[in-house]
Amino acid sequence: MKVAHQHYRTIWFDDDAQSVNIIDQTKLPHDFVVCQLRDVHDAAHAIRSMQVRGAPLIGATAAYGMLLAMLEDASDQGVQQAAKVLAATRPTAINLNWALKLVSAQLLKEPSSQRAELAKVVAANLCDEDVACCDAIGQHGCALIEANSKAGKTINIMTHCNAGWLATVDWGTALAPIYKAFDKGIDLHVWVSETRPRNQGMYLTAWELAAHGVPHTVIADNNAGYLMQRGEVDLVIVGTDRTLVTGAVCNKIGTYMKALAAKAHDVPFYVAAPSSSIEWAGLREGRSIPIEQRDDAEVHTLGGKDASDNYTQVQLCGSRYAMAPTAFRNDAFDVTPAELVTGLITERGLCAANEAKLLALFPEHTR
Amino acid sequence: MKVAHQHYRTIWFDDDAQSVNIIDQTKLPHDFVVCQLRDVHDAAHAIRSMQVRGAPLIGATAAYGMLLAMLEDASDQGVQQAAKVLAATRPTAINLNWALKLVSAQLLKEPSSQRAELAKVVAANLCDEDVACCDAIGQHGCALIEANSKAGKTINIMTHCNAGWLATVDWGTALAPIYKAFDKGIDLHVWVSETRPRNQGMYLTAWELAAHGVPHTVIADNNAGYLMQRGEVDLVIVGTDRTLVTGAVCNKIGTYMKALAAKAHDVPFYVAAPSSSIEWAGLREGRSIPIEQRDDAEVHTLGGKDASDNYTQVQLCGSRYAMAPTAFRNDAFDVTPAELVTGLITERGLCAANEAKLLALFPEHTR
Repeated sequence: MKVAHQHYRTIWFDDDAQSVNIIDQTKLPHDFVVCQLRDVHDAAHAIRSMQVRGAPLIGATAAYGMLLAMLEDASDQGVQQAAKVLAATRPTAINLNWALKLVSAQLLKEPSSQRAELAKVVAANLCDEDVACCDAIGQHGCALIEANSKAGKTINIMTHCNAGWLATVDWGTALAPIYKAFDKGIDLHVWVSETRPRNQGMYLTAWELAAHGVPHTVIADNNAGYLMQRGEVDLVIVGTDRTLVTGAVCNKIGTYMKALAAKAHDVPFYVAAPSSSIEWAGLREGRSIPIEQRDDAEVHTLGGKDASDNYTQVQLCGSRYAMAPTAFRNDAFDVTPAELVTGLITERGLCAANEAKLLALFPEHTR
Repeated sequence: MKVAHQHYRTIWFDDDAQSVNIIDQTKLPHDFVVCQLRDVHDAAHAIRSMQVRGAPLIGATAAYGMLLAMLEDASDQGVQQAAKVLAATRPTAINLNWALKLVSAQLLKEPSSQRAELAKVVAANLCDEDVACCDAIGQHGCALIEANSKAGKTINIMTHCNAGWLATVDWGTALAPIYKAFDKGIDLHVWVSETRPRNQGMYLTAWELAAHGVPHTVIADNNAGYLMQRGEVDLVIVGTDRTLVTGAVCNKIGTYMKALAAKAHDVPFYVAAPSSSIEWAGLREGRSIPIEQRDDAEVHTLGGKDASDNYTQVQLCGSRYAMAPTAFRNDAFDVTPAELVTGLITERGLCAANEAKLLALFPEHTR
């Protein structure tokens, strides 16, 4: 996608500097900053601190983190140690382990002298495949948007968090269909749920959509049910951090409440799910997915531009009269059960959210 | 309730200054500021700018606004004009018109020379009645909490927005049962939903509960469904800005999504509804309730303390690369249908959310 007329991916290798470049997403929407990762610890920090986020981009960053590790220590132990450091960054997104397993297995097959060069190819391929995958999701989802559109009427699509260009290497998952449909001239409007506590909707999705020229409106998360109640939402498309083969979807906290509201008002609820987000073998119960607990500060401290246009962080609460402390709870994800999911948008097409249909589309995962 | 060991109501008349005192709730939780209202326009401003908010306190402020008007112009026209100014401040809470009708009718019966003195008595009575009403709601709701508690286990109660002491003259509606139960030694914990966009949960409810010593945890609104899914919520109690006689409840935006999640997980969902919030004659359809649209700035601009402990407002978004503007939508309330409401907690006791049961409890409203 383009930023100020220049094409960007969210991650790329700089051969001259032997470093990996990312867009620091903690600085958006206020500043557009490209940041250099010089070693595996920089890559781990970028994932943990959410300079990069979104399941597909986490996977790509992990792959490039393995490359940075190989540039320093390409021994078997180096491979294993780097994979361990990167795997420990965030517990929920399935793409992280998927990418680390894929890259590690390929590296360990080759002699250590060739691992750095191989890692570069493997990481670049993984990124290209992500772009192709998102492009395909965009095409299939665009057809879905067209099918739900009525001539002469704007189609109102709601999304949650950011599953856009910034969450992937390019295009996005949930937003790819929106970009494709917009580019095709379909009359659409996007409801952007701000996505507390980290506001990825307001900070990132609104930024992306604004940069591309797509009409959009930011709402507080609380407003979503009301809009569905009033018939102002025609379609919901969200992303996924981990899709169970049973069709349950683990995504950013608040997705589940939107799914409940969509069900109550017969609004189609679709999840853009690249196959890399699907846990083909492993957990089958939504309740078993480890849910990341993040820092209290995400709930009580927010940053923005003050009256002098300086970026300032402010603490929202804390009482001088307290006889009891205020505690905070910050679960990063929730699980939407398959029965609330109208369908999955995969790179191979639409699919009902159940094991039989998923395996019919991806027969190579049948066991 | 007490603030730093001193008892306060949220509104009171100062005979010496001939002014009405309020606690400026736009300054909480950072500063505790008592603010003087000197005329009816100050009172209207206080309601419109949400220096005072919460349906019962809006009613009390309107009554005191009528007193301030009578101190300047006690003619029939003075009564009518003041009521008009105050009625125009906020469209949704039913208590506002209820209080204005009640006070105006009593004033117009008396000669203008006696109206200021009468208005003082009427407003004070309305406040005392509100306190007695909230006290009664507290007693009935406390019994409900006790009935839902299990010996040796903490009962987890979720609330939304602020329907506490600060939303009424004293005690609160949804929080009154919690204060009564806590004071009685019941082992309880409150989930405080931050309530975007104005954060009345994080700013006001957490402040109140902290000041009283009640254990509580602030969450992003998005976290509510997950907690119910995981069985960490035993009971929901919220307030209401307008209760239809059919049992539908209009309350702060986001209430509806909590009600949907509570229904999905069989969590009892109660609404603390003083009879002054009930629209006995008038609208019968939730969809017909006028829903206040508030300023965009509430969504994109937030205030808090910066690193130097200065109160600073920051703007959260806005893109320098925008090809399309970011729009905002800010509906202040939503409507929860009666079928999602387990029961109403009124000053006369618990009641199913339907017309027959409400009229059985308040037969004087049978038509």
